[in-house]
Formats: sequence, structure tokens, C-alpha cells
Amino acid sequence: MAKEMKVEQITDMEVDFAQWFTDVCRKAQLIDYSFIKGMFIYRPYGYAIWENIQKILDAEFKKVGVENVYMPMLIPESLLQKEKDHVEGFAPECAWVTMGGNEKLDERYCIRPTSETLFCEHFANVIQSHRDLPLKYNQWCSVLRWEKTSRPFLRHREFLWQEGHTMHATAEEAQAFTEQMLNIYADFCENVLAMPVTRGQKTDKEKFNGAEATYTIECMMHDRKALQAGTSHYFGNGFAKAFGIEYTDRNNQKVNPYQTSWGVSTRLIGGIIMTHGDNNGLVLPPRIAPIQVVILPIAQHKPGVLEAAAKLEARLRDAGFRVKVDDSDNSMGWKCAEYEMKGVPLRVECGPRDLENDQCVLVRRTDRAKTVVKLEELEAAVAQQLDAVHRDMYDRAKKNLDDHIYEAHSLEEAKALQEQNGGFVKTMWCGDQACELKMKEVAGMSSRCIPFRQEHLGDTCACCGKPASKMIYWGVAY
Amino acid sequence: MAKEMKVEQITDMEVDFAQWFTDVCRKAQLIDYSFIKGMFIYRPYGYAIWENIQKILDAEFKKVGVENVYMPMLIPESLLQKEKDHVEGFAPECAWVTMGGNEKLDERYCIRPTSETLFCEHFANVIQSHRDLPLKYNQWCSVLRWEKTSRPFLRHREFLWQEGHTMHATAEEAQAFTEQMLNIYADFCENVLAMPVTRGQKTDKEKFNGAEATYTIECMMHDRKALQAGTSHYFGNGFAKAFGIEYTDRNNQKVNPYQTSWGVSTRLIGGIIMTHGDNNGLVLPPRIAPIQVVILPIAQHKPGVLEAAAKLEARLRDAGFRVKVDDSDNSMGWKCAEYEMKGVPLRVECGPRDLENDQCVLVRRTDRAKTVVKLEELEAAVAQQLDAVHRDMYDRAKKNLDDHIYEAHSLEEAKALQEQNGGFVKTMWCGDQACELKMKEVAGMSSRCIPFRQEHLGDTCACCGKPASKMIYWGVAY
Repeated sequence: MAKEMKVEQITDMEVDFAQWFTDVCRKAQLIDYSFIKGMFIYRPYGYAIWENIQKILDAEFKKVGVENVYMPMLIPESLLQKEKDHVEGFAPECAWVTMGGNEKLDERYCIRPTSETLFCEHFANVIQSHRDLPLKYNQWCSVLRWEKTSRPFLRHREFLWQEGHTMHATAEEAQAFTEQMLNIYADFCENVLAMPVTRGQKTDKEKFNGAEATYTIECMMHDRKALQAGTSHYFGNGFAKAFGIEYTDRNNQKVNPYQTSWGVSTRLIGGIIMTHGDNNGLVLPPRIAPIQVVILPIAQHKPGVLEAAAKLEARLRDAGFRVKVDDSDNSMGWKCAEYEMKGVPLRVECGPRDLENDQCVLVRRTDRAKTVVKLEELEAAVAQQLDAVHRDMYDRAKKNLDDHIYEAHSLEEAKALQEQNGGFVKTMWCGDQACELKMKEVAGMSSRCIPFRQEHLGDTCACCGKPASKMIYWGVAY
Repeated sequence: MAKEMKVEQITDMEVDFAQWFTDVCRKAQLIDYSFIKGMFIYRPYGYAIWENIQKILDAEFKKVGVENVYMPMLIPESLLQKEKDHVEGFAPECAWVTMGGNEKLDERYCIRPTSETLFCEHFANVIQSHRDLPLKYNQWCSVLRWEKTSRPFLRHREFLWQEGHTMHATAEEAQAFTEQMLNIYADFCENVLAMPVTRGQKTDKEKFNGAEATYTIECMMHDRKALQAGTSHYFGNGFAKAFGIEYTDRNNQKVNPYQTSWGVSTRLIGGIIMTHGDNNGLVLPPRIAPIQVVILPIAQHKPGVLEAAAKLEARLRDAGFRVKVDDSDNSMGWKCAEYEMKGVPLRVECGPRDLENDQCVLVRRTDRAKTVVKLEELEAAVAQQLDAVHRDMYDRAKKNLDDHIYEAHSLEEAKALQEQNGGFVKTMWCGDQACELKMKEVAGMSSRCIPFRQEHLGDTCACCGKPASKMIYWGVAY
């Protein structure tokens, strides 16, 4: 049964993971290609996942006092250049507007690759007193980075994201807020997306252009590659100085405030696909699935079946579930394969015999486990099964992460472990960028993060043998 | 009392309406100017109004089967040129991207001024069969039009909007849907924004570039100028032919589908300000006000006052109201003026004496009418007062509209009426564009719409004297 239902057009992930990924994106109708290379169309099913992510994250942001705003999409070149490290990082991948209508512009404008400079210009206008702080802003928008290569969800020239930008009176407060936002992202990934994360700090080499410190959550995909799923940056007061942002403190002194920024993007959807998907397609975490429950009537031409299905749908909708009945003419086999492809977490089957017995059958997407449920207990059973699916997805992903973190004590050992197993390789590290470059050159791995939860694996750097006090994770990343 | 509380920085609207408008936008902290002329910053309070508009409209769209998507922000010039009338209208106000990173692009891309061309390109990919129709898409995004002049909310180079794009099997269905969406906008304006509208059709001269018919809702502002608040367009199958969009019908024939598009923008916020505002600032319709109720504790240093205010806040929040307590050190006079400026529909005052009597005082923004309310009845009283404020706002605006529609039978009469009274001038019209141009030249008025509710004012055109069967509204518009 399982075999004949398989949607043949998907490449098996064991055969070609990259092709499997692209197949899922297309066949589950998440995304489409556009006229311009690297610019993708978010189709209704893909965009609906993003809407659900937005709804939950936005509420979390508002709980910690963040307010939404919207800044212009264009940045004058002179504004971008105000902070040296920042412009060096972003200028090479900006798209530039040079004509407005039929006229050449006096100064060219780039489409925002990120909006620190725009927020800072505005902060300089609106921050005067310590009473104006902290100021916590966020915007949901798209940004543009003129990348050479692209892949659906993972690397777009234009992608949807949110970018938070805050200003604080003290360095300590700003640092604490940077970490608080990282923890909001981490908890969201684990509790909503069922994606376990490793929390840590980026090395200087990998941090955001212009930041003093970048914190990251790193996930492990099915193919054991790493995905950076969200970052939170602490800027000190460098931008504030460059942009002339000052406030009058309680002692009537003019001082520069301290800054953070933090963001996640539709890359998270790429993470969901590669963490949870299987050879039958997408597997969506119940808490963000656009359709949580699909009801498939069996022998739907028989009297009463469609009416019963509609009643179940209404009940589940009233109970707050996102639910759909498929009463189309397609065969049951086609429907099962279709909703497996689309990753719907739970399927409800009900036919004449079920209805005679006041029951229906729940089938889980993750393991196809079936549960016969009395109709009167439907809502409770669905809630329970969706929670079970979430837990099951998290546990599998956590096992995949935990099983593929390897310990190494030399470059050669790190290289061999990566080649053999993929995953993260953890070593001690002296902190020297030369060793980081060496690891990339020899073992093909970049540093992923210096985890907050440190372990003592030894006293010397795996790369150079000098004294080392930090444990670091290395990996091959998307 | 009222006099001393007045916020002196606002220009009276009777003195200079345009300056009054700009003052309100700035002082109520809705918007800020940016580095680039005509590109504005939506500040938290302004953006929160937009979020409330989005929430309600998006739910209405979803009720009629519309799904959200996101299309790229860039349009290759060759794609924009596929429909002749469309490109002629929009090309002169496009911003053009000519560089990607450090490389000159082979073809220049414009930042979307509207996205018909992008949707059509995608529709050509995804529409194959009659089973794929109707297809109803919408996106929330910003668009860019390189205008020479700009005003907050009314004319931006970049503004936030939604654009719906749908495809239907038959012309009749598409036409009906075009009108359905216009009615959704009209009902929203009246029932949510308390802005009465006139529903009608645009003339050929005023219709959207490339459309066969454009329907509009026209509102009247305080200064009796017209504001086009939303439009819905019927395209026939012109774009479908130009873009090669075809479906196989039930008879296995390839045919072109029929198309609509429709949009409203943050211009609605400009409409709210100019419909409802007064010389004390903004007046917000309760159903979209970011703060519906502000609680101002009186003599807040006295024991129990702040605690009581916090309790009232919690009760109102639990009842689903958007509520805030201002317990800052500012004076009561300052606070009253501040929340009047911000247009908060309802103020709750509570001091020691009120609390002794288990009561508080509700003050309406519109007319400062006070109601003493028993604390136990607070939720019901607040709901009732907010509804009353909405009705009052609508009635006032409706009276302003109804009182300023004038009937004319000649060009000279139309001109004199407009000069004397502003407002709409209604006349019979033969349908000839020459007469429309003449009205503009002689009386300075553009055609606003041919109202759906026609009246018979006579048998001849007010402009040329030839037979006429249509009644039309003229006005000076934003």
C-alpha cells in the first residue's frame, strides 16, 4: 500500500539530497521560479507557512515591548557608507537604482540588503532623552542581496524576513537584550518548528558586518549539514557614534546609546523542509502547518458520507484547528499521496462503516500510525495527536543532532570525521583566525559557533596545538 | 478648560488645511521624513493603524477565497512592456535598477509600481485547466512610483498597499468579482473607518492603465476635496492574451481567462485623518485605533489610585479592548492634550473620589461628552461608548458628504458651485472625453465617478448640451 501511494516524481533524498529538496519545494507548491534568476515567487502554500511563523513570532516580539515600523526600501550610497565595516560587507552585493523615471539620479540608491543605516538615521531624529530609551523597533519586509548562486528558501536575491533594531541606555542592557532575542528565536524553533538548535556565539570572522558580537542558532539538517537559522547582533555604540545618535542622560550629559539588531527569514522554511521532510515529501510541524488536519471521506458517493465529513470539518474549525475536507473526484490513493507530499500532519479518514460505528480513523504523517477514534472524542484526539506528532518530530531531529556531533583533537581527525559522518565536529580552539582559515582549507568546514554550553575537551587548540580555552563547533553549512 | 489644553503647535485647519494635515501627521507621530524625498518612515503609531486595517481586510479577503502570495519586487523592462497601455502609463514613473553588485545588468529592472505583469507571468505557468480557476491571489507589499511631488500618506514614492489579482473562466464571473471586491472596500470604509463612500465607475480617461473598467470608492474630506480611497479593475482577457495565459475548458478548447485586480493603500490613513481630525489633532475610528481606551489616573500619588487603574486596564484588556494606562509624571492637562492629539477614542478618568464611589468617568474624543460609569459596568459601558463614537463619526462625515453634493446644468454653474462650496458637483454627461477635459480646464475639476446610484438630472450634457444619459460626479481631488 505504502509503495503504490508514493509520488514517483520526487527524487529519493538518499540518491540526491539537493534534487530531493528542489523537488519538494516545487511539488508541494511552496515556491516558483520567476523571470529573474535568484528571485522566487512565494506561492500560497509556502506563504501561508510564513504567515503562521509571523503571527507567532510577532506576538513574542510584542510581549517584550517591540513595536513594528516600516522604513524606506532605498538607501542613499552616502548613508550606507557612514559605517565602514558595514558598507564593506554589503556594498558588493547591492542592487543599485540609478534612474528615477527618465532622469539619472544625482546619487545612486541601493535596495536595502539590511536596514541598520536607515534605522540609525531615524534614531538620530527621535532619540533625545533617556526617557526615549529603550527603543525597540522591528519591521517585516523583504531585502535584496545580489548573490551569484541561489536556492529556494536558502539563498534568494530577494527574501522575506524580519529585522529588529533596538537602542538602549547601557551596554549591559543591550547585551542582555541581544541574548534575550536569540533565546526567543531558539525557543520558537524548538517549541513551534520542532527544530532543535545549538545556541552560541559567532567568531569574529563570521560575525555580522559592523557588529561587536553575533549570536546564532545552528540547526542540523537531514544530510547533516548545518543551517544558521537566526542571528542576534550586539553593536556597542559604534553605529550610534557614526550616525550622531545621542541622548541626554540623568546627569544631563550627552551620551551615545547601545544597539542591537536581530533577524530570521524565510530560510526557516528551508530548515523545516530539510529537518523534517522524507521521501514522500514535506512533513510540516503542526503548529505552523497551513492545513493541520485533512479530512478524506471514503466512498464519498454513499449517502451521508460527505455531510458527515462537513460536520467533522465544522467541529474541528470551531475548535480552532486549520482543517480542510478534500471531496474532489480524485482517488483515495492520489489524495493520500497529495497530502503526504504537502506534509499535512494529520489525516482523518471516514467512510460509511466508520460512521455506522460513530468513529473515524486518524493517520499521522510522520509514521502513518493509525488511531480509531470515537466521533465524540474527535477534538481531544486531534489535539493529542498533533502534539504527539510535534514531539515525535522534535525527538527525531534531536536524535539526528545529538548523534552527529563528533569530538576531534587534531585537524586530521576533524577532517576524517567530517568526511565519514558529516555533522558537527567539536574541538578546542585557541581563538586565532589563522586556525579557522586552516580548518576551512584542510577540512572544508567553517566555524558554526562557540556554544554557550561549553565542554572541556582538552587544553590545546586542535588546529595549532597552542593553549586553548574555548570549545567550538565546526561544520559544512548551507 | 478646553482652551488651555489645546496643543498650540497645530495649525488650525480653517487657517491652513494642508499645514494642519502635516502637523497632525508629525505631532501624532504617525510618520517621519527620510533621507530621500517622497519616501516616508511609518512610525509605530502610524504602522499600528495599518496593521489593524490589514488584519480586518485580510480576513475579509480570505472569506471570499483569496490566498496571499509574494512576488519579486523587480520587473524586467521586457516584461513590463508586454501590455502596451500598461507600460505607457507606468514607465515614466519607474525607478530603475541598472547595477547588480559591481556589474552593469544586461537588462534594466524596475521596482514594481504595481504587479500585474509579474502575476500574469506566473499565471501563465500555473493555469492549465478550468479546474485551476478561479485563481484569487493577493499580496501585501510596498510599491514605488517616482512622483515629483509628495505628501504624507497621500502621495509617496514608496507606499504600503495590498494588490489582489484574480483569474476567472468567464467575463461575467470576473466582472462580478471586480464589483464584489469594491463592495468589500466600501463596506470596510463605512463600517470600520466610519468613512462614507460614493461607489461608481471611473471614466475611460481616469481608469487604470490597461483595464477595461475601473470601479472606485470616492470619499469627501473635511476641506470638501475628494479622495479616491480604493479601486477595483476589470481587465477582460487583454493581459491574458498578451502573456499567453490559456486554460483548457470543459470542451477541451484552449481559451484565455478573464482578469481583475484591486487595491487599497496607506492612503486610507490620510483619508482617516482628513475625514475625522479636528483642531486638537487626530480622531481615530475605534475599530482600528491602536489605543481604543486610555486610562488617566487622577491624583495618582494618592494610595490605591494606580492599583485601581491597573485593575481597570487588566479588565478592559481581558475584554478584548486595546487599552493603555498613562501613569507618567506629566500633568493631567498634558496627558489629555496628548491623547486627544493621538485621537484615542475614549478616555477613562479615575481618581480617589471616583474610587470611593465605585465609579469612573468616560470622556469621548469626538465631543468630550462625559459619562459617569459604575465600575461594575465598565466593559459594557466602554463597548457602548466606542460604538457611539463610531456612529457619531460616521454621521458627521455622512452629513459633510451629503451637504456638499451640488447639482449643476452648465459648465459655468458647475464652476461657480465648486468655487463657492467645494464638494462634488453632479451633472449629466454625454460620455465624450472632450467634455471631461473642458470641465477640468474651465472649472478645475476632474471626473470622480459615474455613481452606481444614478439620478436623472435632465436630458443634456452640462458641458456640450448634447443628449446625455449618465450622471457623473466632478470634484477637486487629492
